Amino acid sequence: MPTFKITVSYDGTDYVGWQRQPAGASIQGLLEDALRELDDRDVAVAGAGRTDAGVHALAQVASFSLERTIDPDTLVRALNHKLPPDVRVGSARAMPPHFHARFDARRKTYRYRIWQGGVLSPFQRRYAWHLPGALDVDAMRAAARLVAGTHDFGAFKGQGSDTATTARTVYQSTIHHPKSGMVIFEISGDGFLRHMVRTIAGTLVEIGRGRRDAAWMSDVIASRDRAQAGQTAPAHGLFLVSVGYRDALAAEP
Amino acid sequence: MPTFKITVSYDGTDYVGWQRQPAGASIQGLLEDALRELDDRDVAVAGAGRTDAGVHALAQVASFSLERTIDPDTLVRALNHKLPPDVRVGSARAMPPHFHARFDARRKTYRYRIWQGGVLSPFQRRYAWHLPGALDVDAMRAAARLVAGTHDFGAFKGQGSDTATTARTVYQSTIHHPKSGMVIFEISGDGFLRHMVRTIAGTLVEIGRGRRDAAWMSDVIASRDRAQAGQTAPAHGLFLVSVGYRDALAAEP
Repeated sequence: MPTFKITVSYDGTDYVGWQRQPAGASIQGLLEDALRELDDRDVAVAGAGRTDAGVHALAQVASFSLERTIDPDTLVRALNHKLPPDVRVGSARAMPPHFHARFDARRKTYRYRIWQGGVLSPFQRRYAWHLPGALDVDAMRAAARLVAGTHDFGAFKGQGSDTATTARTVYQSTIHHPKSGMVIFEISGDGFLRHMVRTIAGTLVEIGRGRRDAAWMSDVIASRDRAQAGQTAPAHGLFLVSVGYRDALAAEP
Repeated sequence: MPTFKITVSYDGTDYVGWQRQPAGASIQGLLEDALRELDDRDVAVAGAGRTDAGVHALAQVASFSLERTIDPDTLVRALNHKLPPDVRVGSARAMPPHFHARFDARRKTYRYRIWQGGVLSPFQRRYAWHLPGALDVDAMRAAARLVAGTHDFGAFKGQGSDTATTARTVYQSTIHHPKSGMVIFEISGDGFLRHMVRTIAGTLVEIGRGRRDAAWMSDVIASRDRAQAGQTAPAHGLFLVSVGYRDALAAEP
């Protein structure tokens, strides 16, 4: 039973999210359907991050075991042949049998994109939150820094989160401002609660709009109260960028 | 009757092209419908370039006259309010009454995007021609240079072209290779025949694949015979980038 690790990139616009749902197309469902055809049996696919409906991924990581022998490049081609063009497998790698994309993940990086210009480009409409009106990027940057570290992030936890603890470690939390209209929030951590990145983004926007100062971010974290934080930013601005693993398991396939 | 010049950006994926057709949604049709609501009368919209079905635009230029008085910023907002999010008006400017987006255009720039990597990103699937296998970019660059100048471009004219003459002047014709997988052909000229950019792109690909050498481009031009050129590259890789006007008419609104 060879075990594989694959990277998957997807435009989440038309999907109910990573996880298989009773109704609607999911990324996990598409992969499991394609692998069932390939392996002539049911194959369970584990994903590193359970992205919500409408959230995109540049390099989600998934793992599964097959009965048949197949070399990784052939597996990539076979899966892409069966998948729709808005879901692509970028790479595959054979792994030790105990490898699990979610349990073994050590670092996840997400990116949230905000367009503050007056007119949102048709080419960005699925990939950025449109918030016309200049944001105070310096204040957002200062507030983003306050998110780094080990905290109880209960204030940013969405409903439907099934985790036992709300403590997480954020390794990096930064604001990028590559051109006048675009503001990008990027965050890496050992794990994220449901809606955590989107709710931090919504909280940063309150600060960017000048309704609160940067230090308010620390107050929100300390409160552990969801009612204190900003709104949950819309799904279509969020990207799962990458997932890191222990060196022994290899960071990239 | 104030005359306006607007720039329009659109994702051409879901449209029959710029021009109004008996069936299907067109960019011109959407703009004319929106302006009819705004001006309570039929408004004829002229576009600088009649992009085909599936072709995109970053800054198409259009002109029209209205009976009502409206300031340009309000016009931009009013149009964007009525248009779908995959068609956006970027700017508007009041012009002398005789201004015509097509007849006064002096320079048009198009871009054709090719992805030569094995896997096409979901985020590029609507915006690049996928041609797996490394292209000879240097040969394509040399061939693209041969396109510059005043030539009879009859060899690249698609069916349905209604122009009297096939002579055109190409000011610039270059290949960009910003990252390993992407090859971009960019061309500026005083005007283009129907399918001309896409057929030059298809001819460049023959050269990039090593089936012909760079000098073959000059032979194809000299032949004035459509059968000599390469295939018409697919519409979804093509972007109308910008349209230039005489200084007196202002290059950008």
